[in-house]
Amino acid sequence: MSGNSIGQLFRLTTAGESHGPALVGILDGVPPGIELSEDDFIFDMDRRKPGVNRFTTQRSEDDRVKILSGVFEGKTTGTSIALLVENTDQRSKDYSDIADKYRPGHADFTYDKKYGIRDYRGGGRSSARETAIRVAAGVIAKKVLKEKYGTEITGFVSQIGDIKANYDLNHLDKDFINSNDFYTCDKEVVEKFDELLRKIKKEHDSIGAKVTIVADNVPVGLGEPVFDRIDADIAHAMMGINAVKGVEIGAGFKSVEQRGSEHRDLITKQGFLSNNAGGILGGITTSQQILVNIALKPTSSIQIPGRTINKNYEEVEIVTKGRHDPCVGIRAVPIAEAMLALVLVDHLMRDHAQNRLLAKYHSH
Amino acid sequence: MSGNSIGQLFRLTTAGESHGPALVGILDGVPPGIELSEDDFIFDMDRRKPGVNRFTTQRSEDDRVKILSGVFEGKTTGTSIALLVENTDQRSKDYSDIADKYRPGHADFTYDKKYGIRDYRGGGRSSARETAIRVAAGVIAKKVLKEKYGTEITGFVSQIGDIKANYDLNHLDKDFINSNDFYTCDKEVVEKFDELLRKIKKEHDSIGAKVTIVADNVPVGLGEPVFDRIDADIAHAMMGINAVKGVEIGAGFKSVEQRGSEHRDLITKQGFLSNNAGGILGGITTSQQILVNIALKPTSSIQIPGRTINKNYEEVEIVTKGRHDPCVGIRAVPIAEAMLALVLVDHLMRDHAQNRLLAKYHSH
Amino acid sequence: MSGNSIGQLFRLTTAGESHGPALVGILDGVPPGIELSEDDFIFDMDRRKPGVNRFTTQRSEDDRVKILSGVFEGKTTGTSIALLVENTDQRSKDYSDIADKYRPGHADFTYDKKYGIRDYRGGGRSSARETAIRVAAGVIAKKVLKEKYGTEITGFVSQIGDIKANYDLNHLDKDFINSNDFYTCDKEVVEKFDELLRKIKKEHDSIGAKVTIVADNVPVGLGEPVFDRIDADIAHAMMGINAVKGVEIGAGFKSVEQRGSEHRDLITKQGFLSNNAGGILGGITTSQQILVNIALKPTSSIQIPGRTINKNYEEVEIVTKGRHDPCVGIRAVPIAEAMLALVLVDHLMRDHAQNRLLAKYHSH
Amino acid sequence: MSGNSIGQLFRLTTAGESHGPALVGILDGVPPGIELSEDDFIFDMDRRKPGVNRFTTQRSEDDRVKILSGVFEGKTTGTSIALLVENTDQRSKDYSDIADKYRPGHADFTYDKKYGIRDYRGGGRSSARETAIRVAAGVIAKKVLKEKYGTEITGFVSQIGDIKANYDLNHLDKDFINSNDFYTCDKEVVEKFDELLRKIKKEHDSIGAKVTIVADNVPVGLGEPVFDRIDADIAHAMMGINAVKGVEIGAGFKSVEQRGSEHRDLITKQGFLSNNAGGILGGITTSQQILVNIALKPTSSIQIPGRTINKNYEEVEIVTKGRHDPCVGIRAVPIAEAMLALVLVDHLMRDHAQNRLLAKYHSH
Repeated sequence: MSGNSIGQLFRLTTAGESHGPALVGILDGVPPGIELSEDDFIFDMDRRKPGVNRFTTQRSEDDRVKILSGVFEGKTTGTSIALLVENTDQRSKDYSDIADKYRPGHADFTYDKKYGIRDYRGGGRSSARETAIRVAAGVIAKKVLKEKYGTEITGFVSQIGDIKANYDLNHLDKDFINSNDFYTCDKEVVEKFDELLRKIKKEHDSIGAKVTIVADNVPVGLGEPVFDRIDADIAHAMMGINAVKGVEIGAGFKSVEQRGSEHRDLITKQGFLSNNAGGILGGITTSQQILVNIALKPTSSIQIPGRTINKNYEEVEIVTKGRHDPCVGIRAVPIAEAMLALVLVDHLMRDHAQNRLLAKYHSH
Repeated sequence: MSGNSIGQLFRLTTAGESHGPALVGILDGVPPGIELSEDDFIFDMDRRKPGVNRFTTQRSEDDRVKILSGVFEGKTTGTSIALLVENTDQRSKDYSDIADKYRPGHADFTYDKKYGIRDYRGGGRSSARETAIRVAAGVIAKKVLKEKYGTEITGFVSQIGDIKANYDLNHLDKDFINSNDFYTCDKEVVEKFDELLRKIKKEHDSIGAKVTIVADNVPVGLGEPVFDRIDADIAHAMMGINAVKGVEIGAGFKSVEQRGSEHRDLITKQGFLSNNAGGILGGITTSQQILVNIALKPTSSIQIPGRTINKNYEEVEIVTKGRHDPCVGIRAVPIAEAMLALVLVDHLMRDHAQNRLLAKYHSH
Repeated sequence: MSGNSIGQLFRLTTAGESHGPALVGILDGVPPGIELSEDDFIFDMDRRKPGVNRFTTQRSEDDRVKILSGVFEGKTTGTSIALLVENTDQRSKDYSDIADKYRPGHADFTYDKKYGIRDYRGGGRSSARETAIRVAAGVIAKKVLKEKYGTEITGFVSQIGDIKANYDLNHLDKDFINSNDFYTCDKEVVEKFDELLRKIKKEHDSIGAKVTIVADNVPVGLGEPVFDRIDADIAHAMMGINAVKGVEIGAGFKSVEQRGSEHRDLITKQGFLSNNAGGILGGITTSQQILVNIALKPTSSIQIPGRTINKNYEEVEIVTKGRHDPCVGIRAVPIAEAMLALVLVDHLMRDHAQNRLLAKYHSH
Repeated sequence: MSGNSIGQLFRLTTAGESHGPALVGILDGVPPGIELSEDDFIFDMDRRKPGVNRFTTQRSEDDRVKILSGVFEGKTTGTSIALLVENTDQRSKDYSDIADKYRPGHADFTYDKKYGIRDYRGGGRSSARETAIRVAAGVIAKKVLKEKYGTEITGFVSQIGDIKANYDLNHLDKDFINSNDFYTCDKEVVEKFDELLRKIKKEHDSIGAKVTIVADNVPVGLGEPVFDRIDADIAHAMMGINAVKGVEIGAGFKSVEQRGSEHRDLITKQGFLSNNAGGILGGITTSQQILVNIALKPTSSIQIPGRTINKNYEEVEIVTKGRHDPCVGIRAVPIAEAMLALVLVDHLMRDHAQNRLLAKYHSH
């Protein structure tokens, strides 16, 4: 397969470029009977949408999700759901001068080498514009998780540059997270983030970020042995988000310096005494909170000139024009939530298929 | 699928438990005409094998790989290759006292909850014993890469606890790496690692590690847009190794604190000026060195008593008996190399299928 | 997966119901650099379109295919291609009286039992309307086959009821086939088909048909051993067309009465002396003409009252209103051609991935 | 994928050649808690085994199935099950003279063209020997079906040459079927089959056959819309059996001559009044008996000399030596049963994954 699908049973397939007529997604495997309307998508689409807060790009797409199939009289029918998001604000002209130049840090070079042809308008298929459909699909996944299992997914910005948010993972304030410009969880860092990003912007530069995503009330037993451990599939889903360069589960890279006596989460009648595992043992959920951290690189779309080459291997200078985020990590919050939700529902279905089939054989 | 396969086109499917009669793998999609003998597996199987150096467990399996199909008169035929590794040193008795207890940090609890039944002997399917077959399959993948593209994969231990190796990724000494007890690349840390592990062992504890894996001479253009970016598939493959809690590509979590002007790798006629991208842009290889770091947790199999529960949710104390690695990261080196090789060959084939089909349409 | 995708590498995923806003398809794996415009779809879409000849249903959709992605400046880019066909002539009213009744011979009963909810307007997802997208995707597949390999696919109606066309598979007149009302290959049967269908229509009944599909200039070596033999994948693709009840390759059911000495196709320097194999040996193409026959049942949408039950398991009588084909087999011709084309391209890519990878190892 | 796997969730992957050391299968997705022992395989392995009755080849392999994983203390654990069948009676010498000649009607020519290398001993991977593993996997599938749903699968020989068995599909005598030399259902034809096959054998020729397979007590709702209709997947599974040239569901090719008023199965409170559909509507099971017919060609391994070419494209004569079935259709009975069972369990799991997930949404 050519990489445009994710999930085995709850499966999203996408198409669409940054500056084509529309983005399209087909979501296959959605259970029947779930109430779904086009309004359900607004909240998350707005969180991902450029121009909503001050520090994200100002392309002002409406990003309205249209349902083209799979829903009848307000409920899912169990057949494939087609989602469409039109590109209404494309401004192709902004990009025409880079048709032959390879922007450093972008996929221009690699797409050209791979395919021998490239839609150079705004990155084409490699643009983060594509993630709009992921967020839409994630809305449906979150609905399934919440309605059936009470599972809740919460993402937030936990670090920008060297400024780190403080937080207690058991007491996250979702309302605060979704109402501040940085989708962060810590009131104390809002001003510092603001100052940093103003500075970065003034310097025409950009900065990296760390996003933390947790899932609470996760059913026990999700994940498949060996290759499709749920942490492996989470890593795949997260590393597949534009700009992500690292993924941690639970203690993550801190584990390198830990002792076994410190890392292993002891178990009591009341549950686990710690969560270095991040809610996953042997690749299977324990029912503890799932904890994921991802590193997002600073966008390469900056207005500081840089050296590169063009199609003819001639050295040229390049400056990215147009409006761009100084910190793409902020908009990644709903995307990362969506990806985690897609993985969880897929694994719910995979677990269900095998282990609930012969319920009489074992009491679960 | 139940997670026992990896790869779309170059596809490994495995079976087998720690204490069953044998481990089995079927490798599908191997190109025909490659010379292959059972001796080809010895070097890598030895690197993974417990008991080869002083700090890995002393189970002394022979770990001889048998080829049951797909090779005729010394060459691959293009049909599926079955690999078999017998379990000759199982000592089931060591494990019988943990049949009902859930070892903290292990998959005992989650397998029981998922399946309602569990092969408790040495972790059964969740044991790292299973990775023997991955290493065997990796040997074939590395052969394809080396013979056709000159691609070389090198893994080494870059950190144990808080002791960090120093290295120049462009001048790694493979002979040294494979001849020291820690598969590390830095002569200076060998003694420090040795001291640390003696200490850890004396304290009946364990310690985490970081493993670094690089691939040189990688063809440009490997990786699929959107979900199956090659970094996403590498993250999946690496996080699917037992004990791995984090994966980084290129600058990894350092990207969080980087500026765009620092992170983006500028391009000249002579090539890229830096490698924060880790050889991957937009999920597609640039032909630069691929750079991956993984975090391995300290094994939970330690001889320090710990609190846990049993099947009846009663609190009990547990001490892991038997012989175990104080640092499982060391043995992960050939496994991580194998996983990277499997991903690369799979993507070579995926790229080939689509982009070499109509060669006349574009000059590559 | 929920059955809405076909192909491993050249992969079509579809969505859309008979009376929803649109049909959508995402075609993944299309090689880059192929010229493609929306006009390319007209010829085949017209052949499938109801109302084009006298004996197919008179819904007059325009069936214009819109390309939403994957094509840039008139050429495919290698990224996923989204195709959209709007439903412009839905007339939902025709169907509202069957919301609770299960039409015999239709999928009403099974969809209700499977999903507990059903889009009853015109069959919803089970309607043959869905095949419009398959035909569109088939156009792209045929283009790849023709341009690269000279492979040509020809389908025709070879039997309606007990009236059989005569033909010489090596001398089919494509112009005649595509210009007569029945897409048949035999001038002699046109009048007989016409008479039969007038009679059937007058009696408010319907009749079955046989469609024959051949592929010429097929590359040797397509098909994978054991489960995904190309004949197995052709059978899957053909049996997945609405109303198909049987599939034959080569001599088909005639093989039951043949002797081995008669069936085996002897080989000379000039090639095979016969084609009982239908161009496939051991599931792999020989380069001879591929020969497929399919049986299409008479549509159950007839105006003769019939017994059935409703949702409450009460016995009721039902008469299908609306406009329907007396012989659905006729419209199946371009659909069957499309399915064969999709299978062939997928197998070209699969073969390419494995066997062309290491070209230096064997001269092909 | 290279065709060595079948099923999405209940997935069999196989390896092994006719004259290699062993056949291997990995069956993934088996539910946990099912009792399974190596003795369970004997009955079906014996039915497939050559030499059991007078008219099948006399290679006397023991065909004992070994379980290498996935079963613990007599029960399946939910992890992948590896099955091994050794090749104990290979007699490679019989085949050495055909190393360079392409036997007409066999896969010799196509394997050589596809891979450029070929295990010529007894057909290698293309040999029907491979089906031994399918039969073994089918035993597990049938067990799941029977124990959980009471589903029973029955196959029998319904025609050899032009001699047709008579039968009533609702009153098949399984004991008789499995105790006569031809696995046929009709006492009246046994002697005729016997005479015919003696004659064929004396003439050193072979003959085709038709096999009929039915499934009773099938749950309603199995099958996925559009491409993976259960009839499409059955067609794929059946056409993937060596020597099969045609597949029919329900009325099959008879549908071509039927009227809609005759074909559609009317429904009453007591159920369907006929079964032209073969238990499947819109690709989804109705709970009626599933009815499948397959055509098996006469084997090309006959002792009548035939014309062919060798590797150098020189014309040569060939005579198949060794022991071969005059009618391979007979041994296909347990294989066809196994394939149907594998498809049904896979679809049970697929249906379960999606439609039982949110049971509260609809009452099923």
